[in-house]
Amino acid sequence: MTLPAALAAELAALLGDGWRTDDAAREAQAGDDSRRHALPDAVALPRTREQVVALVRACRAHRIPIVARGAGTGTTGAAVPTLGGIAVSFARMNRILDVRAADRCAVVEPGVLNGELQTALQPHGLFWPPDPSSAELCSIGGNLATNAGGPRAVKYGATRDNVLGLVAVTGAGELIRCGGAYTKCSSGFDLTRLIVGSEGTLALIVEATLKLAPRPQAQAGLRAFYRDAASAAAAVSRLMAQPVVPAMLEFMDRRSLELLRRNGSDVPEAGAMLLVEADGGFDALPDILAALGAAADGDGLLDMDVAQDGMARDRLWAARRALSPALRSIAPGKINEDVVVPVSRIPDLVAGVEALADEHALTIVSFGHAGNGNLHVNILYHPDDADETARARMALPRIFDLALALGGALSGEHGIGLSKRGFMARAFDPATLEAMRAVKRALDPDGILNPGKLLPDV
Amino acid sequence: MTLPAALAAELAALLGDGWRTDDAAREAQAGDDSRRHALPDAVALPRTREQVVALVRACRAHRIPIVARGAGTGTTGAAVPTLGGIAVSFARMNRILDVRAADRCAVVEPGVLNGELQTALQPHGLFWPPDPSSAELCSIGGNLATNAGGPRAVKYGATRDNVLGLVAVTGAGELIRCGGAYTKCSSGFDLTRLIVGSEGTLALIVEATLKLAPRPQAQAGLRAFYRDAASAAAAVSRLMAQPVVPAMLEFMDRRSLELLRRNGSDVPEAGAMLLVEADGGFDALPDILAALGAAADGDGLLDMDVAQDGMARDRLWAARRALSPALRSIAPGKINEDVVVPVSRIPDLVAGVEALADEHALTIVSFGHAGNGNLHVNILYHPDDADETARARMALPRIFDLALALGGALSGEHGIGLSKRGFMARAFDPATLEAMRAVKRALDPDGILNPGKLLPDV
Repeated sequence: MTLPAALAAELAALLGDGWRTDDAAREAQAGDDSRRHALPDAVALPRTREQVVALVRACRAHRIPIVARGAGTGTTGAAVPTLGGIAVSFARMNRILDVRAADRCAVVEPGVLNGELQTALQPHGLFWPPDPSSAELCSIGGNLATNAGGPRAVKYGATRDNVLGLVAVTGAGELIRCGGAYTKCSSGFDLTRLIVGSEGTLALIVEATLKLAPRPQAQAGLRAFYRDAASAAAAVSRLMAQPVVPAMLEFMDRRSLELLRRNGSDVPEAGAMLLVEADGGFDALPDILAALGAAADGDGLLDMDVAQDGMARDRLWAARRALSPALRSIAPGKINEDVVVPVSRIPDLVAGVEALADEHALTIVSFGHAGNGNLHVNILYHPDDADETARARMALPRIFDLALALGGALSGEHGIGLSKRGFMARAFDPATLEAMRAVKRALDPDGILNPGKLLPDV
Repeated sequence: MTLPAALAAELAALLGDGWRTDDAAREAQAGDDSRRHALPDAVALPRTREQVVALVRACRAHRIPIVARGAGTGTTGAAVPTLGGIAVSFARMNRILDVRAADRCAVVEPGVLNGELQTALQPHGLFWPPDPSSAELCSIGGNLATNAGGPRAVKYGATRDNVLGLVAVTGAGELIRCGGAYTKCSSGFDLTRLIVGSEGTLALIVEATLKLAPRPQAQAGLRAFYRDAASAAAAVSRLMAQPVVPAMLEFMDRRSLELLRRNGSDVPEAGAMLLVEADGGFDALPDILAALGAAADGDGLLDMDVAQDGMARDRLWAARRALSPALRSIAPGKINEDVVVPVSRIPDLVAGVEALADEHALTIVSFGHAGNGNLHVNILYHPDDADETARARMALPRIFDLALALGGALSGEHGIGLSKRGFMARAFDPATLEAMRAVKRALDPDGILNPGKLLPDV
């Protein structure tokens, strides 16, 4: 695609040095962590919401695609400009506008990094709950676009649960304001939570009011090893059914543990492991930990370690942190999907994935956020082995079908983007997809916002 | 309006004894707790989702309005069929389809009463958090339509925060399915939370998957009296900034306390009162209560009572329960609005309301859910006093303007319906209202679902 000269001239005048058509700038906005790649025709780096409004209106007049970009850490290709057009980077709209400690909220521009915000909140004794593994590098705008999660979501919710209001520019080029610095609202349609998770296909977020949580005084944790995934999943249900919600509740399957042992980690032979973390006041924590320990105990428990202090806790989490590098050590190729199932169906998911691994002669490793039923299923393969690569690609739709058959969903925190778009028609019936398309047309009548993402072609 | 004969015949055949045109049936669906009243032309009592689909398609073909009805306990007129047409009562779709304790969710039809569900959940050690004051009588469908709240919302969230999935029939007559028995999802647009709180204007909910919480072992509470609203509000901010979230955090202003004293309640002279409740395990509760007590203490605190056991707690809450009857004792007319402001602006709201009461020579009593900044502002008047009634009506828009000027919203839990529809253009700019209208047209292209509610006329 070549941009219309009139549009390029208009946007160059609007954005000044925030309008870039050079190769380096375009290349910097071409990819994400899905390893997909496509060059935009130009890059816009607006500094103000007024520039974003003018940009969208100009692109709309010329029917030119707009792809919103945060830090490019997404895993689904949602931020890759596959149809060219203009990549809008929010790197220059990166101010923390207000920290309202008494109202437990912060007002930010989308280019603020998650990690920057957490640092700024520390002196206030507050934090923003979403904690994707890329937290140090990823932008709040990207967190909002994908409804990002992380281990803390089991207690504190994912991004959608931690946003109070938005200012956004729709595909119609209109600036809308929804929600605000309050935690309860029955006033009109909830456009805030509609736009969160819509992957830049409905509106460009230019400001967000984020719900903050008080930092707990302390954390403590335990890890428990089980005979098999079924007994670990039963423990997950018990842990989620008692009144003290764990702050994190992570699962690792038998293959994850094998892999860690092979790489020298100090974990015993077991069918599954749970990492359970509690947070709270210094005084309350021993009781909380005792309650979680009691719930973790039950049929199939092999062994349990409790970590009361920070160093012991770091030891427990070391295994979890060692897992991703360990995955790379056995195969350079990895398809990492983050399906969701009802908590009670985790054993069926794990057993089903093991059966698919056997059937396709693949190594598949499952671990993740058990309290939300959100497991990362990692198919490992050697990209230079054409046959293994083909088997990996064949297994993938079977994994989605399995999660859906168990009453689950395609993604718990990564989103759909390009990589799961082809599976949306398996997840939703035609009427529901058509309702989503109607909502898309309502807010982006000319289809210029991130075309070709999230929703499948008709 | 007279219904087209073909439509009436079609629906009579579809619904059998669930099709009613007699006066008694129409009268039963004519009002709500706003004391507005308008007869529908007919009443439909479907038993199945298939009947709801057929009903909507038939009404759409004839452009006949449909007003969804729960138990009629709403306070805004949202369920009053002001334009006639068909009132769809969900009284016969009242089954609890599944309680999935291991997944901490329940699947229900919309006609189930909130109180019935709580009773059914008790043996499982679970509850559904929304607790509007009408909980014994109101339907889950109505809770979903209004995004109902209640005191527990400060810890557990309002209805929107406690719904995982919906099956609904759009105004296009299409059955859609969104969400499910999982707590984390990044898969397509969140139609679930869009439909919750839309007051029957986007879709008719025929099934909901509700997020449940474990019943705490015990509750304990404290009440604290303050010199003035400002010092009470500062305590609210302190309470919300420490790690133990109160299970309830209720506020009463000076006039509420005067009224209670006048009616014989055992409360001292004070500028404001907070009722703070904690819940948790037996062992943890003393520490939790100590933390809340420490946060409640501060400048302007006059007195504090702590209730560790059930009887003492009932005594504390007796004053809160005595308030609504006391309001009726001084004036038979009451305009009860439930504005929201940021927590830090509660003192400004209370002071502003007191100034408006003086200016208009009215008694206005404010109390409510302080942890969410959601106060019930009650204008008391004698309906047979024309001048006082006129002053009450004049004060109302000033209260909404005050809440909006403080960065708040029109309603925290009652919704908009008819009564606040005329104020929506004060709360939202034209572009945001137009975005809501576009979403409305997307899901209800012919505008047959609850016309004349929530959104103002263009």
